[in-house]
Amino acid sequence: MASGRFITFEGGEGSGKSTQARLLADSLLARGIDCIVTREPGGSPFAEQVRDLLLDPATHPHSALSEALLFYAARADHLEKVIRPALVGGRWVICDRFSDSTRVYQVEVGGLPVDAFRALELIVVKLTYPDLTIVLDVPAEVGLARATTRRLAQAIAGEDADAYEKRDADFHARLRDGFLEVAKAEPHRCSVLDGTKPPDVIAAEVLAQVDRRLLPPAGSR
Amino acid sequence: MASGRFITFEGGEGSGKSTQARLLADSLLARGIDCIVTREPGGSPFAEQVRDLLLDPATHPHSALSEALLFYAARADHLEKVIRPALVGGRWVICDRFSDSTRVYQVEVGGLPVDAFRALELIVVKLTYPDLTIVLDVPAEVGLARATTRRLAQAIAGEDADAYEKRDADFHARLRDGFLEVAKAEPHRCSVLDGTKPPDVIAAEVLAQVDRRLLPPAGSR
Repeated sequence: MASGRFITFEGGEGSGKSTQARLLADSLLARGIDCIVTREPGGSPFAEQVRDLLLDPATHPHSALSEALLFYAARADHLEKVIRPALVGGRWVICDRFSDSTRVYQVEVGGLPVDAFRALELIVVKLTYPDLTIVLDVPAEVGLARATTRRLAQAIAGEDADAYEKRDADFHARLRDGFLEVAKAEPHRCSVLDGTKPPDVIAAEVLAQVDRRLLPPAGSR
Repeated sequence: MASGRFITFEGGEGSGKSTQARLLADSLLARGIDCIVTREPGGSPFAEQVRDLLLDPATHPHSALSEALLFYAARADHLEKVIRPALVGGRWVICDRFSDSTRVYQVEVGGLPVDAFRALELIVVKLTYPDLTIVLDVPAEVGLARATTRRLAQAIAGEDADAYEKRDADFHARLRDGFLEVAKAEPHRCSVLDGTKPPDVIAAEVLAQVDRRLLPPAGSR
């Protein structure tokens, strides 16, 4: 049976992941490749309910371990209901954040032991690892500035900033380092792109990575 | 440092766990043993938020794996914030349901692979296993009848039954078998008591188990 490809976008807050996920979907569809865009945390009705709990500013304080378990509860559902059925049906899946985010936020920044993370990966993700992960790299101050702009817009609209949007420059620097470390450790599936370039330039670079890594050369098509 | 003892009550719906947990606490306090009574899912503010999500009848359908991960997210918080601090402080902890319930509901009844359960136990519970587990055994029809009575009372009060209170006789029979199997597999910490006896008779039997298994003989006190 034809199997789709699984592409994830990773990076800190305000690095342009959701924009690039959408642009890549447009390009793939224009080439006749059937694909869906989804996101984490969330992506399926139950996972969205867990997302609401995770991101609600009124959620009581809890450890990186509890948080990772919640993320994986949502991820298990998202994989089962959305990602795997699409891949098995031959559709490509483009996901805005996936397990690398848990690794960076809860392990590298949050202090969860990496063994606990690996055990959860094994239980939940099993063989559904991304075929390609695009890490959008932006300097900490850019991530902070974009997150701050988003918070201001939310404040003007009378909305609360979510739990992750209230962090400082040091937090954004640790996030950035974390994603770069993941990319360095797994170069066979990760590409780091400069997230400060204009969106259309980044989109062309993303497509070049897809061509090079996931699509067979013209002669073999 | 003095360490308290950790006692859990397990069994199907309507087996009398919360009543016996309270009665045991009264008896221990009367003997001058400092103790707390707590429950799962829940027992700490964050874990209670996860409990609300788990038991809300409007929660979207999800797998035994997702459910187990949510239970362990709550359990990790409960252990960290309530159970371990109490034990370290020398207090005894009496808990209405603990990880045996996850094993029975999600593994024995729900079909979660036992390896996934064991991995979660290792990540979350680590060395905080119960010193004594009382399994209150009632025939499936008694559990079903008690759960039905509870549902009727909730309906009269205009409340929804929670997600676990809507199951049938076969479900209650599988629950019962599951708890008996756990008790058989771990006799060093589990005692099965007949949950159909009058509450005061069961309470005396619980106390006898505590005396025999957890309190040193009179000569050595």
